[in-house]
Amino acid sequence: MAESMAGLKRSHRCTELGTANIGEKVTVMGWVQKSRNKGGIIFVDLRDRSGILQLIFEEADCGAESFAKAEKLRSEFVIAVTGRVEARSGAVNENLKTGAIEIRADYLRILAESETPPFPIEENSKTKEDLRLKYRYLDLRRPDIQRNLMTRSRVAILTRAFLAEEGFLEIETPTLIKSTPEGARDYLVPSRVHPGSFYALPQSPQLLKQLLMCSGYDRYFQLARCYRDEDLRADRQPEFTQIDMELSFVDVEDVLDVNERLLKKLFKEICNYDLQLPIQRMTWREAMDRFGSDKPDLRFGMELKNVSDVVKDCEFVVFKSALENGGSVRGINAEGQGAMPRKKIDALVEYAKGFGAKGLAYLAIHEDGTYKCSFSKFMKPEELDALVAAMGGKPGDLLLFAADKDKVVFDVLGNLRLEIARQLDLLKKDDFKFLWVTEFPLLEYSEEEDRYVAMHHPFTMPMEEDLPLIDTDPGKVRAKAYDIVLNGTEMGGGSVRIHQADIQEKMFEVLGFTKEKAQEQFGFLLDAFKYGVPPHAGLAYGMDRMVMLMVGADSIRDVIAFPKVKDASCLMMEAPSQVDPKQLEDLSIGVVESDEAEKTEE
Amino acid sequence: MAESMAGLKRSHRCTELGTANIGEKVTVMGWVQKSRNKGGIIFVDLRDRSGILQLIFEEADCGAESFAKAEKLRSEFVIAVTGRVEARSGAVNENLKTGAIEIRADYLRILAESETPPFPIEENSKTKEDLRLKYRYLDLRRPDIQRNLMTRSRVAILTRAFLAEEGFLEIETPTLIKSTPEGARDYLVPSRVHPGSFYALPQSPQLLKQLLMCSGYDRYFQLARCYRDEDLRADRQPEFTQIDMELSFVDVEDVLDVNERLLKKLFKEICNYDLQLPIQRMTWREAMDRFGSDKPDLRFGMELKNVSDVVKDCEFVVFKSALENGGSVRGINAEGQGAMPRKKIDALVEYAKGFGAKGLAYLAIHEDGTYKCSFSKFMKPEELDALVAAMGGKPGDLLLFAADKDKVVFDVLGNLRLEIARQLDLLKKDDFKFLWVTEFPLLEYSEEEDRYVAMHHPFTMPMEEDLPLIDTDPGKVRAKAYDIVLNGTEMGGGSVRIHQADIQEKMFEVLGFTKEKAQEQFGFLLDAFKYGVPPHAGLAYGMDRMVMLMVGADSIRDVIAFPKVKDASCLMMEAPSQVDPKQLEDLSIGVVESDEAEKTEE
Repeated sequence: MAESMAGLKRSHRCTELGTANIGEKVTVMGWVQKSRNKGGIIFVDLRDRSGILQLIFEEADCGAESFAKAEKLRSEFVIAVTGRVEARSGAVNENLKTGAIEIRADYLRILAESETPPFPIEENSKTKEDLRLKYRYLDLRRPDIQRNLMTRSRVAILTRAFLAEEGFLEIETPTLIKSTPEGARDYLVPSRVHPGSFYALPQSPQLLKQLLMCSGYDRYFQLARCYRDEDLRADRQPEFTQIDMELSFVDVEDVLDVNERLLKKLFKEICNYDLQLPIQRMTWREAMDRFGSDKPDLRFGMELKNVSDVVKDCEFVVFKSALENGGSVRGINAEGQGAMPRKKIDALVEYAKGFGAKGLAYLAIHEDGTYKCSFSKFMKPEELDALVAAMGGKPGDLLLFAADKDKVVFDVLGNLRLEIARQLDLLKKDDFKFLWVTEFPLLEYSEEEDRYVAMHHPFTMPMEEDLPLIDTDPGKVRAKAYDIVLNGTEMGGGSVRIHQADIQEKMFEVLGFTKEKAQEQFGFLLDAFKYGVPPHAGLAYGMDRMVMLMVGADSIRDVIAFPKVKDASCLMMEAPSQVDPKQLEDLSIGVVESDEAEKTEE
Repeated sequence: MAESMAGLKRSHRCTELGTANIGEKVTVMGWVQKSRNKGGIIFVDLRDRSGILQLIFEEADCGAESFAKAEKLRSEFVIAVTGRVEARSGAVNENLKTGAIEIRADYLRILAESETPPFPIEENSKTKEDLRLKYRYLDLRRPDIQRNLMTRSRVAILTRAFLAEEGFLEIETPTLIKSTPEGARDYLVPSRVHPGSFYALPQSPQLLKQLLMCSGYDRYFQLARCYRDEDLRADRQPEFTQIDMELSFVDVEDVLDVNERLLKKLFKEICNYDLQLPIQRMTWREAMDRFGSDKPDLRFGMELKNVSDVVKDCEFVVFKSALENGGSVRGINAEGQGAMPRKKIDALVEYAKGFGAKGLAYLAIHEDGTYKCSFSKFMKPEELDALVAAMGGKPGDLLLFAADKDKVVFDVLGNLRLEIARQLDLLKKDDFKFLWVTEFPLLEYSEEEDRYVAMHHPFTMPMEEDLPLIDTDPGKVRAKAYDIVLNGTEMGGGSVRIHQADIQEKMFEVLGFTKEKAQEQFGFLLDAFKYGVPPHAGLAYGMDRMVMLMVGADSIRDVIAFPKVKDASCLMMEAPSQVDPKQLEDLSIGVVESDEAEKTEE
């Protein structure tokens, strides 16, 4: 039976007590982590969000009634206890914050009983995630998840305090907005008042924050809920949170400066990590050349080397044909891995094929300086020596080469480098390597759509010096766009926006938008820009990812209170679900059976 | 033509400059509020979010090129200017923060030109709201709206800082949740992955925050976006923001205490108002009796008086039949309004009828002590004297009476009292009268559904002493529920929740829920409560309303960046809108034409 807490008031959370409180009378409340009866003395570990505290019940102290209740205690019962703080009679428990004390109980109330939970509430649970997510309210009791969510709360509070201090205004933008079919798939919300019309949930507040700049708010931020109806991956959720900001009268340097200081503050306060400023910068071009990635992980080396020049005259047809087709030959040096067994190398070759490689050439340097090489018969010894020299190969090293179009080579070697680092356990979670990647291409060519598409979005400002290239060689135009990368994860990104009507028009022209289409999709923004728009720029962080990196979690699900699984459903609420037909009728919509849907397609 | 700001960096916002800066070289940027050429000297009022600054252009200082540009300046052009701060040569403008200085420009760049706006950008705009909302990006440039949104930002930041300090964790809850048909109408979101299934947007995070308590988070808060698909009123929006909180191991006093301190802090920092604690409390019963309202406006008196006993033996049939039908006769004294012209009294009678009154009895006391009374012929002079005495009537007063069922009498007189106060201009916006209304009825009888419904929600805790009444007289049971009222507006409310399975079961029984129905609708909450739920309680503020009251705005639309109008549409974005048929196909839904919808209903 659940008792009320009438007349009782909690005096402390569990770990707010310590040896300084010895002798005090206290009232604590929380969950029974475990309880055991040892020769007529009942020991209870009491848990709240702060941690664990040991309680001791002896009938002589707490009386028969409380003692009888204490005998009934089981895991996850909720109790209130009054008692006196004492030095621990047994050995001090060094693993507990409160390990030097215990509470000698004189009164116990059972505020709520508990059935046996379907899995134990414990750190680093081994329970299958699906079961944990069905009972998320129990899973959320785990101390590690609680720490994650407490950290997330601190990140939010610190971020807001910092940005407010820097003159940013927190402004809420609507989430029932207009659908713009460009970009990812929108979640739609049928309108009841306007039958046949729909709102969309925002993929980001991009257009609205640009409008706020146009309206003179100067500096905006928001921890904004965003929505994308995409197929989910490990680090994706249908709804996610962005730390979103926009600044007026600024250029790239201003945005980077304020964000570097924000990151320094956050990582100091949250991770006790001293981030040295300025954060390293690298152009997109350099990042691709050196790491085969636009979000390089700088926790280890193993950089890509372009050996196209070295092998350009060799007879190895794989290298030769790659070069003839305008591609390149590049390699990485897995230092000290020369003795890697054939089986593991074969696995790497398979891994590489997953990223589009037709194969992977390798050359192991034995300790005696001789080579084991998958393509030695196609190259002269002096050519091999030159290649090894170009790669900085030393006895004991393993050289891996990809030859293909640049895009494939980068993808293969960029990922291979990460895979080897994982195998060698080089990716320490408490090592934070930050990087700005700058000067992204403005456009990328979409084979599928047979046109250029915006790499970021159509409002990204080209670099002034590349403006003349827009007509002649659009693929070469670099953008005033930047990403902040941490340990190989893109934590955020942004750009300077176009505020000049003529450049914006040119941009739409290159993207193949007619004036009508541009007006239809972005009309209110283009209209707004007719009335005096300031130069402006912005940036947004994926907050879930940021917190995940800070706490070293493996999944963003571990830093979200009620996450959804891969099929975008919530196992706990059983959402989405069927609804009352009356609700659909009110909205003037009906469900189209799948064979009907197919018919429509025909 | 728009110029870039390459090479320029803003040194100050407009009103960051003052006489202390005289002699300094500065760079300012903003919008041209107005510009005028006075005998070859161009005066420009530059505007940014901080305010206005005067610029002076003379060709001798700024050179021919800049001067030529300055001659072209028109309202809403965006410019960057460098120059030197000087004491103002003309008269000091006392209305401006920067009225004692001006900037003698030596360089001008036009960052963006502007077409002539469709309405002037000015404080307290007289422009029709629909036009302003269509061009909301221009409307948002008005200094009064900018002040409102800046205040809102401060409220958000201060609230979070305070609650974090008090041990609350900010935890985000999902907004794609399960639809529960109880309560207001849900906005639905069709699922693509699960054809025929829908998410709902949350009406509030109620169930999820209770789960967080069950999960041991102890104190939660969130500035939560909430959604209700209801017909809009002046103070309603389809999406709105709640300052939402929940606390474990607490009772009513704890919730009220922390919230009183929050309000004291907010109103001090934002309105410079010293809120005296504790805030006055009044039971729901007393609020109804004295003010005819569960959200009384305490900025003025004019309290209701129950005169049923006084008139119980009179022959006036209106009074008599009301009493015979179990109703009451109550009155208010509009002091000093005895000379109100008949026409105005008639208008009040009409107003009262709008709230269900069949009529309104009045008695005016002339300065000579005689009466003008609408029912004098039905009552003896001594009865009238007794009535006047009971109402505390003095020469020059106007007494107004309603006789009906209590519900009608309260509604009529409660609203009449407000209407008279409005007419007499008694409702000062900078006078803040706070009130806790407590001990709300747990249940109210719904004639429509012929059953009791929860006044707040089914998880509201009854007062312990009223528990025995649940079976015998459910309508009499009071709840541990409380509203915070400011100047007659319900700013927030909450309750202690039921954490005992037996009381919860009883509650569902009274509400006429079968076990199956309760499980279907609230299954995950009821399941969670089986595993040890702490006593908990919470409160939520309507943040839009709170800010509206703080800044003295007339509508919540004036404190929301991009509000929607009465038909739930956004005039600026033109949302909701029709979408691409492919989008609906992806979601397996179709629009049902209205005549089809009618057919379905038959």
